[in-house]
Amino acid sequence: LDPRVLTVMLQELSGPPANPSSIHSFGKQAQSLLGKARTSVANYFRVQPEEIFFTSGGTEGINYLLRGLPSKGHLITTSIEHSAIYRTVQALETQGLQVTYLPVGPYGAPLPKQVEQAIRPDTTAIMLSAANSETGVKIDLDQMSAIALQYNIPLLLDAVALIGKEPFFLPRGVSALVVSAHKFHGPKGVGAVFIRSGFQTTPLITGGSQESMQRAGTPNLAGILGMAEAFEILAGSQEKIYLHLQSLQDRFEQSLLHHLPNLTIHGTGPRVPSVSNISFPGIDAETLLIQLDLANIAVSHGSACASGALEPSRVLLNMGLEKKAVRSSIRFSFARTNTLEEIDQAVLHICTIVKKLHRHARST
Amino acid sequence: LDPRVLTVMLQELSGPPANPSSIHSFGKQAQSLLGKARTSVANYFRVQPEEIFFTSGGTEGINYLLRGLPSKGHLITTSIEHSAIYRTVQALETQGLQVTYLPVGPYGAPLPKQVEQAIRPDTTAIMLSAANSETGVKIDLDQMSAIALQYNIPLLLDAVALIGKEPFFLPRGVSALVVSAHKFHGPKGVGAVFIRSGFQTTPLITGGSQESMQRAGTPNLAGILGMAEAFEILAGSQEKIYLHLQSLQDRFEQSLLHHLPNLTIHGTGPRVPSVSNISFPGIDAETLLIQLDLANIAVSHGSACASGALEPSRVLLNMGLEKKAVRSSIRFSFARTNTLEEIDQAVLHICTIVKKLHRHARST
Repeated sequence: LDPRVLTVMLQELSGPPANPSSIHSFGKQAQSLLGKARTSVANYFRVQPEEIFFTSGGTEGINYLLRGLPSKGHLITTSIEHSAIYRTVQALETQGLQVTYLPVGPYGAPLPKQVEQAIRPDTTAIMLSAANSETGVKIDLDQMSAIALQYNIPLLLDAVALIGKEPFFLPRGVSALVVSAHKFHGPKGVGAVFIRSGFQTTPLITGGSQESMQRAGTPNLAGILGMAEAFEILAGSQEKIYLHLQSLQDRFEQSLLHHLPNLTIHGTGPRVPSVSNISFPGIDAETLLIQLDLANIAVSHGSACASGALEPSRVLLNMGLEKKAVRSSIRFSFARTNTLEEIDQAVLHICTIVKKLHRHARST
Repeated sequence: LDPRVLTVMLQELSGPPANPSSIHSFGKQAQSLLGKARTSVANYFRVQPEEIFFTSGGTEGINYLLRGLPSKGHLITTSIEHSAIYRTVQALETQGLQVTYLPVGPYGAPLPKQVEQAIRPDTTAIMLSAANSETGVKIDLDQMSAIALQYNIPLLLDAVALIGKEPFFLPRGVSALVVSAHKFHGPKGVGAVFIRSGFQTTPLITGGSQESMQRAGTPNLAGILGMAEAFEILAGSQEKIYLHLQSLQDRFEQSLLHHLPNLTIHGTGPRVPSVSNISFPGIDAETLLIQLDLANIAVSHGSACASGALEPSRVLLNMGLEKKAVRSSIRFSFARTNTLEEIDQAVLHICTIVKKLHRHARST
């Protein structure tokens, strides 16, 4: 959590009880803060505040979009989406939704041509990640947007793994977009959905009249104000953050490949600067992960949301990797708070551990 | 927010990034905290931790239960439920759910006999509020539970307006229960659902494997830990809190009726000690509300979730009150942080304002 975000949250958490839906002064004050937060988020995306809706996070936002689609019809997505999309689409498939899961190869993202070819007369939406959560590989958003406009099909965007990592310009062809605050140093448990004016969805959570009847429930005001502050910080320093992350990723990958030339970085397509998903041939990723953890270096196999399973990553398997390569893969993530020194330390630790594990493997 | 809750939240918010689903040490530490929080909530209700699921609040919890029911079939509820139930049930009605809205008179709650008589062979659930959010009138929970057990129909309980106000014992016949943290000095934007082991529901939000696959999404850890602390506080002092609230309500109602004997307190049934919903004959509630607000006394017409509408309260109308009486009604709520002195001040202000408004009415 960015300390500036915490400061904003603390103001709300230590203030008087303030439900933005209440009509007394405390409520009106809260309503005004909520409105300012909505404007901050809208400004970041250069859209109208009325097009921004607050949620409890990325997963709720994705469920809201997908479950708000007509229950019959045809959806285009891929086989490498985050489980919030993948499992929700699978659930909707059992209820009659027809789905094309585009195959994705070593490139790591679907190609615009694939999407175009999958369009059918009954296609109701295209749901894609702007950047893959496990590899960081990006789609060609401008071309995807152009296709969505040309065929007049709503393009729904999971932007959770992209926002905060690099400058973002929302193309006209995107009808809706989902973000999660904790992915850019905001609080956990809050997110936002952009719904372009005119795009119709059905609410997921009904009840009170909050969020223009699109999302009922007393808003998580502290979380929302914190997320708005996180967006304000991005708006002021996104380019700088991007360059810093890029320098971290470059240093990490160049240095690591220099010492361990037989590694493979997954995804040959353009990536966000915050992720390097790498396979270490002959190494069990689980063992490497535990050894790194002992050195206070926190890494993962893939998406934390899928971690419980201990299954090899569906994303990497569906990119065509062999099970063995997947089981030797680690996702490294960089934050804007990381330093080049930390990167150097991490590389040193990784090299030491990998060499030790190799020696151990040879001696047994 | 209770300062002790804030302290617990601050620890999480100012700590290292900690996603309970991550498998590194930071994640495992977070997982352990999440487990302890689940145990705190479970202990309060004397149930198993596996029967507790965290949500973003009461409205999500209610949507989860109602939208998780079989889409066909018959539901029993009332015409005075909070909009989280009322509007969600109305939405489900358009999708084929059959609903009995039990009528409720001046008593202010449905009677067990009414529920029993409404049961049909295709009844799939009974959804009721433990206490009404606008009047505080309680249902006879033990009898409702007995009926649910006798007919083997799941009783789903909206306990948002009851928990924290008085000691609560979860009867065996309740299959599921919803709470919202900010109703008992926890944070806004977090809640919990109890689902009795064996009661099947369909998740509302799918994706990652969090919450035993019942509620996907990165958990709002700070909010959840805060709610758990709020439950711990309740567990240690619920009786004391109850007695204090009761003393506030008694003083308020006795004192007010002494000075203004023509007032009516809505709901003749037993009420929680935290709400007095009162009509002031000949007074426009809106005017009274604004005058009280100027004196820093925050009151409401009804549920904040319904406030946007400026419509007269559906709850009071459906209790059989005339529109005129509804438009002269105010909901007063007491918190455990209120004092008897504040009650006396409020009564003084109310009497002064009411007399001024009456004089004004006579002179025009």
